[in-house]
Amino acid sequence: MRFDFTPREAPKPAKMTLTLIALDRPTADFAAVFTRNALPGAPIVIGRRRLDEPTLGAIIVNNKVSNVCAPGGVEASEKICAETARLLELKPGQILPSSTGVIGWGLPVEAMIGALPSAVSTLTGGSILPAAEGIVTTDLYPKIRRADLGGGSIVGIAKGAGMIEPNMATMLVYVLTDLAVPRAELRAMLTRAVNATFNTISVDSDTSTSDTVALVSSGRVPGVDHAAFEQALTTVCRDLAEDVVRNGEGVRHVIRVQVQHAPTAELARALGKAIVNAPLFKCAVAGNDPNVGRLVQAIGKHVGAQAPSTDLSHLRLTLGGIEIFANGVFQLNPAKETALVAHLREAELYASALPKDGVFTAPISYPPHERCVEIVADLGHGTASATVLGGDLTHEYVSENADYRS
Amino acid sequence: MRFDFTPREAPKPAKMTLTLIALDRPTADFAAVFTRNALPGAPIVIGRRRLDEPTLGAIIVNNKVSNVCAPGGVEASEKICAETARLLELKPGQILPSSTGVIGWGLPVEAMIGALPSAVSTLTGGSILPAAEGIVTTDLYPKIRRADLGGGSIVGIAKGAGMIEPNMATMLVYVLTDLAVPRAELRAMLTRAVNATFNTISVDSDTSTSDTVALVSSGRVPGVDHAAFEQALTTVCRDLAEDVVRNGEGVRHVIRVQVQHAPTAELARALGKAIVNAPLFKCAVAGNDPNVGRLVQAIGKHVGAQAPSTDLSHLRLTLGGIEIFANGVFQLNPAKETALVAHLREAELYASALPKDGVFTAPISYPPHERCVEIVADLGHGTASATVLGGDLTHEYVSENADYRS
Repeated sequence: MRFDFTPREAPKPAKMTLTLIALDRPTADFAAVFTRNALPGAPIVIGRRRLDEPTLGAIIVNNKVSNVCAPGGVEASEKICAETARLLELKPGQILPSSTGVIGWGLPVEAMIGALPSAVSTLTGGSILPAAEGIVTTDLYPKIRRADLGGGSIVGIAKGAGMIEPNMATMLVYVLTDLAVPRAELRAMLTRAVNATFNTISVDSDTSTSDTVALVSSGRVPGVDHAAFEQALTTVCRDLAEDVVRNGEGVRHVIRVQVQHAPTAELARALGKAIVNAPLFKCAVAGNDPNVGRLVQAIGKHVGAQAPSTDLSHLRLTLGGIEIFANGVFQLNPAKETALVAHLREAELYASALPKDGVFTAPISYPPHERCVEIVADLGHGTASATVLGGDLTHEYVSENADYRS
Repeated sequence: MRFDFTPREAPKPAKMTLTLIALDRPTADFAAVFTRNALPGAPIVIGRRRLDEPTLGAIIVNNKVSNVCAPGGVEASEKICAETARLLELKPGQILPSSTGVIGWGLPVEAMIGALPSAVSTLTGGSILPAAEGIVTTDLYPKIRRADLGGGSIVGIAKGAGMIEPNMATMLVYVLTDLAVPRAELRAMLTRAVNATFNTISVDSDTSTSDTVALVSSGRVPGVDHAAFEQALTTVCRDLAEDVVRNGEGVRHVIRVQVQHAPTAELARALGKAIVNAPLFKCAVAGNDPNVGRLVQAIGKHVGAQAPSTDLSHLRLTLGGIEIFANGVFQLNPAKETALVAHLREAELYASALPKDGVFTAPISYPPHERCVEIVADLGHGTASATVLGGDLTHEYVSENADYRS
């Protein structure tokens, strides 16, 4: 496989980057899952068709403009595919297109076609880092995860920082492997891996119109154990999903909620999502304020509205390993409050700095640690469980999104 | 009826205020609806019991501490009721308690009992303004609405600015009338009025554990037409609900979504909620940025996740009366973009000011106008409709909630 990118230029959403991932040889073994947003982008519409094609040869990605519900969007995207195919000596149906960026704008087709020859001619077989860098928009840093097994490897890259509450997929994720796994097994494994990883995260409860996870196998390394492959694939997906949250727009604390002993897996996941999506709790975490009442509010809201028959009498909550709620009442005292504040401070990625000209900005660098705000919600009434990751709600998020397009 | 308050002292959440609303004579004609949060406050538990009592004589409200899941919370609240009853020569079962404020803290019972004699001795039959002022927490201003009919009137007061997505009720609302309507009719009317008004607003998608709407009739003015009464009651509730949003934490734009020609009223309301609760769209509105792609995202997310069989092919969207989406694609051009920005600016309540010491604060004054960001979503496929009110997501919201308790 070869990768390409054109250099990004600051500021972040200013210039479109075309990223081309080309296989040395087209493969029949590819899989993809897409957003369930009911108003999807044109590349999603095309991508769903591509799943019926016999082989895939390349993936062409642009940022800046997501090509969602733009007039003539499907035709524009197919035109890019056709030109990419011509240059790579492939058929248009062998090209998977992806777009991310502003919803509502149309692709600058002629300019993109003009840039394609240079993208093709500079394809390189080296590091995947340029591709990981090329696909970002508001991401603070590129996201790459890798697992080695059976004499080959699985390498994945992801972009996504806002509009992140994936439903059957996440923003843009490409997972590449040289391990030979047939198409049918590949697709079943990808669906399960995505469901257990990307579908359990939420940065801001918004579900993108462009979510895509694609998995491509070149098939060069035969004989891999399928169970081991699926485990490694799930690990790569889980690590990338956590990267997406840790790099979420304005995220200064990653929040990990483990819901245990729930009556169903659906309820466990929904409760985890209810907690990481509760704006007041997210703001409290941003302020290193262990306002656990807002945590209880989020659980009670979801159960009251969506699952009113649920028994909460055995509910037990811990934050940073410290029991805060049991037997129907809070279990708090001043020493615990002090310890809870310390836990929140330890999980903070960056301190919020005073804004320049009223605009808060987050530092652009890799995260200093992988710690989370750790919450366990034990319902004491069932065998199902789920782990959900989310982030806090900060001034940096508001600054980034109150003025993203300008 | 008489009202009382002890003066509030700045800063906002610093000191508890006890507010007493006492009837001249206990009445059998009262109604109340409460939060459906599954972990409700002790006053909600008691309030539900009070609905079975033959008469109601007074309402005692405190702010600062909401008495939710605090050890001994029900006993604490009943003790306040008993002491209030003793001073008013009533029975404890004739007192409706309400608490709002921080979740997780216990009531300072002895201090509150010590303050009750002065609350009783200073009861006055004058304006309801002191009561409206006494019940607030993070509200910017007191909220009072009134309707006159049939020789009497309906007067309502409300508090609530954050943790506002009421489910069958809203924060604290008290509606008083001298018009005689029997208990059964009063309760049926209140349920319908709340469902059409308070249950269609959302400031931040969080549902309080303390939501209460109480309606009390002294019965002094007989002969009111019931249909006219219900209409006036609904108007008072709708106006108060809009006041709650316009005064929502950090709200600088009120967003009104009218969903029309939907297959069901439930879907219409859910779509309206999905739009006003979408963080990215809320941030865009805060920045006067007509990023209508985020509006489409919110609709597509809800339909994709919750109602995937819905036909969106006839979807037509307007913002400020300007068509932005029809026939499956955006209908945008530079002139429209300029007009959309102008609409957003006109609906802005306050310009965001540079923060002092990193903390954004909203002005404490009455709103300068009653304009909204006006969105119409026409599904073109049904007869149901709904109107939902929400607010934008601003630095002022984050500042208020990242450090509310300290």
